[in-house]
Amino acid sequence: MSNTKIKRTEISQYGEFGLIDHLTKNFDLRQPSSLKGVGDDAAVLSYNQKKTLATTDLLLEGIHFDLIYTPLRHLGYKAAIVNFSDIYAMNGTPTQLLVSLGVSKRFGVEDLEDFYSGIRLACDEYNVDLVGGDTSASLTGLTISITCLGIVDPERVVYRNGAKANDLICVSGDLGAAYMGLQLLEREKHVFQQASGIQPDFAGKEYLLERQLKPEARKDIVELLQNKDILPTSMIDVSDGLSSELIHLCKQSQCGCRIYEENIPIDYQTALQAEEMHMNLTTTALNGGEDYELLFTVPLSFHEQVKDIEGIRIIGHMCDASLGMRLISRDGNELDLKAQGWNAFEDSSSNA
Amino acid sequence: MSNTKIKRTEISQYGEFGLIDHLTKNFDLRQPSSLKGVGDDAAVLSYNQKKTLATTDLLLEGIHFDLIYTPLRHLGYKAAIVNFSDIYAMNGTPTQLLVSLGVSKRFGVEDLEDFYSGIRLACDEYNVDLVGGDTSASLTGLTISITCLGIVDPERVVYRNGAKANDLICVSGDLGAAYMGLQLLEREKHVFQQASGIQPDFAGKEYLLERQLKPEARKDIVELLQNKDILPTSMIDVSDGLSSELIHLCKQSQCGCRIYEENIPIDYQTALQAEEMHMNLTTTALNGGEDYELLFTVPLSFHEQVKDIEGIRIIGHMCDASLGMRLISRDGNELDLKAQGWNAFEDSSSNA
Repeated sequence: MSNTKIKRTEISQYGEFGLIDHLTKNFDLRQPSSLKGVGDDAAVLSYNQKKTLATTDLLLEGIHFDLIYTPLRHLGYKAAIVNFSDIYAMNGTPTQLLVSLGVSKRFGVEDLEDFYSGIRLACDEYNVDLVGGDTSASLTGLTISITCLGIVDPERVVYRNGAKANDLICVSGDLGAAYMGLQLLEREKHVFQQASGIQPDFAGKEYLLERQLKPEARKDIVELLQNKDILPTSMIDVSDGLSSELIHLCKQSQCGCRIYEENIPIDYQTALQAEEMHMNLTTTALNGGEDYELLFTVPLSFHEQVKDIEGIRIIGHMCDASLGMRLISRDGNELDLKAQGWNAFEDSSSNA
Repeated sequence: MSNTKIKRTEISQYGEFGLIDHLTKNFDLRQPSSLKGVGDDAAVLSYNQKKTLATTDLLLEGIHFDLIYTPLRHLGYKAAIVNFSDIYAMNGTPTQLLVSLGVSKRFGVEDLEDFYSGIRLACDEYNVDLVGGDTSASLTGLTISITCLGIVDPERVVYRNGAKANDLICVSGDLGAAYMGLQLLEREKHVFQQASGIQPDFAGKEYLLERQLKPEARKDIVELLQNKDILPTSMIDVSDGLSSELIHLCKQSQCGCRIYEENIPIDYQTALQAEEMHMNLTTTALNGGEDYELLFTVPLSFHEQVKDIEGIRIIGHMCDASLGMRLISRDGNELDLKAQGWNAFEDSSSNA
């Protein structure tokens, strides 16, 4: 937050209403469904024949993000992306965003402008309208609450519960990079705190940092599936880790699954960093999380159509629930999948 | 939070997914527009010919509520009501709710159950579906984020900007009681803290406490206006105080206004308590806030239809913007209206 040193306007100078006006004044409405945005008691939206999707996320300082290495602009971008990703995971298109902030006195108006500039960039790139929100004082730290609305054709909505035995399990992009980016940032933070002045060297690790600090939502995959006339039987986005998300799909679809370690897509930088840090690469890919890739199932009959699509990997198949949920390792062993996604309730260290 | 003493289950025992399942399991979907609620990446909603309304609010411990005198069940109820009120203020009907909680280790599962029991009661009484949300750990205190969706007939949506000069200004119910309830609770909290053991005596002051701790949204007024075929030209709910809300209507409608002190509806208990506390009664009614009454304007031609409706008071009229926004006091003086609504950014005392 080096900007705070340059210019710092007290938030109290604006008051609540002035502040939200100030922060949202450059957000134009672009979606035909956005009739009225910020500035009344509620946004007014019109969806006609489409179905509406709604999702919400709460991001808390010290739990979900660390401002020591997260620029506020990136945080705004990521906060929006995380919610867009949930809408894409329903095979929909995000259309409107509502953003609420709770901010302590530590933050100046310029900090919030940085945050909103990230929100704006995300809205621009994904063609989403900011239509509401709330700003409030907080006693400690930064609280971000985002609600995203979206639309979907009634016949194209994809839930988590539609997978059947023998369906192919597919995942977009690669996994584990965002988690390795986080490990890298945490390590450099400790080095910096212990020997102030040593600047971190991230050369050759840009991809890991980008995946952690400025992730993207897989709009392209949803469009690609539509263009190829592929309708997944189930879908979820990978926010808590592949293992945890697969378990969601299996449980809600009442299936088991087999995935193959050798098929899990992992980027070269991720592998290199895991080796450097003596971490198990497969565990990283299975449990790291924050990948925001799409995990979905398609009927076996779609094999030919799916197998050669760039950016999509078939990692296994669904099976009868009685067969359990398992990873087949490179050496042929079968291991039970566990939801080892980050449990924030156990990790939080304060007793407040 | 006396319940915590009786039984306390650690939140970590459930994990994030188990917890949200546990807390939301008794919420059935009742609205035809709710196709899919909690349990996927996003809720799926269908609005057909109606317009959709969306509003969101962030409530932070120490800023918006004090758990020393606010039972969690009441807090859940109020958090929902505050959002329903925003939907009614658009002349709409609330239909879906998304609730996110950030909770520190101080809270047990039973506490969250209490909170959700309040949410459930509000959903039951106002016929609203809980369709989504998020639970997360927090380092300090309780964070509540609520998003409410609603529907409205396209030809009946009422904005803040439609008032014209000469329109009558109307308000439902009475004002200032919730603020006096808060003063009362704050006073008893201090007494209790200084001389532990002295139990507060709230006899005869139940109405003030109810208005502060368990407010209602004016569903009945919206229905009444519909039944009498009255379409307001502008409307807003009174959350920050009459004065502040009137200024919103005037500014957005590019009007001025005249309201009459003698016409402002005030309950007997409010008046008695203001006198006891040596507070100016009119200031309390103008700036107290949290009344969740509806403030609206109707054309002058509706005077006959509106003047005798029980529970609605005509308090003045809109005028040309050049004439300013003024209160006419009992002795005939004209006073400029000021938005002295509680500015949380100035009041917050921490520097965190």
